[in-house]
This record gives sequence, C-alpha cells and structure tokens, in this order.
Amino acid sequence: MPRFEPRNPDYRAVAADMFARQRAMQTLGISVSRIEPGEADLAMPHSADFTQQNGFVHAGIITAGLDNACGVAAFTLMPAGSDILTVEFKTNLLAPAKGERFVFRATVLKPGRTLTFCEAKAYALNDGAETLVATMTGTLMALARRG
Amino acid sequence: MPRFEPRNPDYRAVAADMFARQRAMQTLGISVSRIEPGEADLAMPHSADFTQQNGFVHAGIITAGLDNACGVAAFTLMPAGSDILTVEFKTNLLAPAKGERFVFRATVLKPGRTLTFCEAKAYALNDGAETLVATMTGTLMALARRG
Amino acid sequence: MPRFEPRNPDYRAVAADMFARQRAMQTLGISVSRIEPGEADLAMPHSADFTQQNGFVHAGIITAGLDNACGVAAFTLMPAGSDILTVEFKTNLLAPAKGERFVFRATVLKPGRTLTFCEAKAYALNDGAETLVATMTGTLMALARRG
Amino acid sequence: MPRFEPRNPDYRAVAADMFARQRAMQTLGISVSRIEPGEADLAMPHSADFTQQNGFVHAGIITAGLDNACGVAAFTLMPAGSDILTVEFKTNLLAPAKGERFVFRATVLKPGRTLTFCEAKAYALNDGAETLVATMTGTLMALARRG
Repeated sequence: MPRFEPRNPDYRAVAADMFARQRAMQTLGISVSRIEPGEADLAMPHSADFTQQNGFVHAGIITAGLDNACGVAAFTLMPAGSDILTVEFKTNLLAPAKGERFVFRATVLKPGRTLTFCEAKAYALNDGAETLVATMTGTLMALARRG
Repeated sequence: MPRFEPRNPDYRAVAADMFARQRAMQTLGISVSRIEPGEADLAMPHSADFTQQNGFVHAGIITAGLDNACGVAAFTLMPAGSDILTVEFKTNLLAPAKGERFVFRATVLKPGRTLTFCEAKAYALNDGAETLVATMTGTLMALARRG
Repeated sequence: MPRFEPRNPDYRAVAADMFARQRAMQTLGISVSRIEPGEADLAMPHSADFTQQNGFVHAGIITAGLDNACGVAAFTLMPAGSDILTVEFKTNLLAPAKGERFVFRATVLKPGRTLTFCEAKAYALNDGAETLVATMTGTLMALARRG
Repeated sequence: MPRFEPRNPDYRAVAADMFARQRAMQTLGISVSRIEPGEADLAMPHSADFTQQNGFVHAGIITAGLDNACGVAAFTLMPAGSDILTVEFKTNLLAPAKGERFVFRATVLKPGRTLTFCEAKAYALNDGAETLVATMTGTLMALARRG
C-alpha cells in the first residue's frame, strides 16, 4: 500500500513529462527508472565528461540527479496544473562518486499544499554492488503553472 | 590587503591547475575569472543543454559552479601537495537562473588545517544587470595528495 | 538608506512583540538589540546552564539565537497580520562558542510573499573582541495569523 | 546484528558520560533512552520554558536534541580517548513541535576516521501517537581529547 495518495490520477504521466522537458537531464544522460506516489528513482551512466580532478563524477552533477529525483517524487503528489521549483537542498558527500552507473532514490517525507520535503540518496554501482555516495534533503515548492 | 595569507606561494597556479583538471568544468563551459587568497570567481555562459523544464539553468548546474568556486577559493589556502574534496554544501535557490551569463563568487570564511568553510553566491547577468539567484555554504576538506 | 521597504509601518513593534512572546528567548536570556527593515541583532550572555561537555555554549542554543535573529529580520518585511514559521536552516559551527556574551546578526537576502531567505552570523565576545563562531542560512515562511 | 562494530568496547559508557557532562541537556530536560553502535535515542518532556510565540517548542531546542542524538550516535563509533564536535547540521521543520514529549532518534550513515555523517528525526508524542516534526543531517568530527 502506498504511503501517499496522489491528488492527480495522472501523477505518473505528468511527473515523467516534467522530467522529459528538462534538457539538462538528457545532456547528463539521466533517466527515470521508477515513479510511485511520493517516490522516484533515476539512473545515470558514468561519463568522463562530468568528472572532477580525480576522475569521480562532480558533486554538482550528483546533486543534479538527487535534486531531480526529489522533484519527480514531490511532483507525483502535487495537484494537476502545478509547476514545481526547488527552494533549497543540502548535499552531504560520503564517498567518491566512482562507479559504472549511479542511481538516485528520493522519497517524500512530508507533502504539503505549498512546500514538500524530500530525502534522496545517491548510490554508485560497481560490479553489481551499491555504495552510498551522497545524501540530500530538500524543499520543493508547488506553483500554479502559467499559461 | 588580503584577509588571508596563503601557505603555498604557488596558490594561484595550483588552484587554476586543480580547476583545469576537472572535465566537468569544460563540459559546462565554466571558467575561472579571478583567484585571490581565499576568494574565487567563476563564469559560465547560458547553455540550453543544461536547462530545466522552464528554460532556466538547472539547480544542479548552478550548484556545480558554486561548489567549484568554493573549491578554488579554499584550495588557495591549503598547503602545497594537498588535494581537496567537498564534505557538504547547501544551496538556496532565490530566483530563476535566467541569464545570458552567470558568475559564481566564493569567499573563505574560516580556513582550517583539515576543514575550510566557504560561502558563495551565484548571479545571473542580463543586459549588464546582476540578479542574485542562489547562495551556497559549504565545507571543504584538505587531503594529502596521493602519488 | 535601507535596502528594503517594510510593508507594515509598525514593523519594529510587531517584530519586537513576536520576539517578546517567545518564552524560550527569556529562558535563554536572549534580547533584541537592533531591528531595522530586513535586519536584526540579538544578544545573549554566557550561561553555564546551556553548555556542552567542554563548557562552550551548546550548538542548539547558538542555533536558537541565529534562528530568532533570522525570524525577527524576516518578520520586519512581512505584511501586517502575519505569523511566521521557520521552514529550514543550516548551521555551520566554525569555532567553539566560548565568550562572555554572544551576538546574533541576521540579514534578509531575499524577501518574498511566502518565503523569505535570511543569513545570520553568531559572534562570541571576549574582552571586547569578536570571534565568528557560527553561520546560518535559513528559509522563513509567512502565514496569515489565526484568530 | 548491529550495522557497525564499535572500536571502543566501552562505547556505551563513554557516550553516556559525554552526554551527562553537558549541562545544557540537564537544563533542557533531555535524557538518553537508548544507545547502540551508531544509534541513539533521546527523550524530552514538553516545557513551556522553551516555547516560541505559538506555544510550540522552539526550533533551536528541537535542534539541540537532534544534534545531541547525532553526537551520541557518532561517539559510539569513535576510538577511546576521543572528543567530539559538530561541524554542521541542517534542520528541516516539518510540523509544529507540539507534544507532551519528544523523542530524537539518530543513526550514523557513514562513520569515518575524522568525520562521521548522521541523520536524525524528531517526533512529538501526543496520546501515544508519534508525529514527525523535524529532521537533521549533520557532520560530526572526532578529536583527540586534551588532557
């Protein structure tokens, strides 16, 4: 049984569409692998184009994945006709982002009419093993979509 | 008079080199425009490749610029032979990242043997006018460089 | 010239009153020393009752002062009839909170209809010298006051 | 089976002792209810002395409980002879801190030689029901104890 009841029956389609309209996600090679009410998983292959000085994926890129996982998770619980923006997030970097692939898993902790609070974790995958590399807590805001 | 006295007389060259070795910075089009002891400014042109659903630059990309500005600023005060990693940062997003160009300005607030604490701000430039779009506070860590 | 124009001409009185209705502030010995549009300074004497294991003031107590400085600063820019709550804050602890007195100085960076973003710094005072001991960034929310 | 193996066989006694030496905890009425390797629970009764303008417990006081829960949890995994300090934390406030009692539950996500990363949650208890009121993520640092 899902923990949250979406207000928009089309929550999965609108969340996937909001994600698909983000060119940054295509450029970074990030895709959605799971959408449930208040939850989202994203996946990203390693790319040397987005590494820092030691060959690990840059913290800002990991943050982009975490933030978008939070955004998709939060968006599933917003009413039809909403737009979404990020108010703030904090990222803790626990281990080098070194992996063949990365997954970003977000969960809504508290949905609200205006503000939704989410948590997310980033994992590096190496030979099938997952390592926790970063965490995020963030606040997302629902807006009435213009136009 | 600079607020901080670098321990490494080559601080400017090593900070610029650490930045230059980050492929992510080249991919994002970010460059260093100023390095002083405990301070760094970076610049980035707008690129549609890194936008979110409303055409603004993605919060993760803005965060990458802020994080690297903090990293360069912190690195200027670290001893020769150091490597640097980010422990954590928090980004507050104050306005849409909509601009022709963006600048990221970081200042060390408290350097330390192990941990250095920085603040940074991101501004969007439109027709010569600057708008504050995001702030970061972050903790960076000095490591002895391997090899 | 103040950076912000208060919407409520009674901003100083309502901000001081909101502060005065907080019993926690009296218990901690915190008082308001300055209120301007979008700015507030608070002061607190050292008290052994609020120390941690090394005799420094506890990080949570420093945070209470920083949070309230942000709250008073943000409240000066909210419309008449508002209540205020804190959405989130992050505290970085830069030096031991060791002093005869402490001051908390907050500034609004971005006021908004719903959300206001503030920065604050905590200083320890010893023999007239100020040491920066902690920083906060935080988001405050305006609510219509009930009743 | 515990997730973490303490390096100090006396971890429970030293963590309880570190907590007991904090006068702020006594003043706030906070006590330790559980200590396991990398985990700690604290409890606090409601006290009108620590409320804000609406009669809820002040965010700084909730933060003090969360921070100390993180500190005790992190301390269980540090070597004998360590002292501990908090580097930074972020608190998200999800619901009014309104309750007869409060509990603070912390878990280490990543212990390290120097830095330990923790998460904590604060719950309000009313008629036996728990409400999540706040979350924290924080970084704690191990120091060699002086003297």
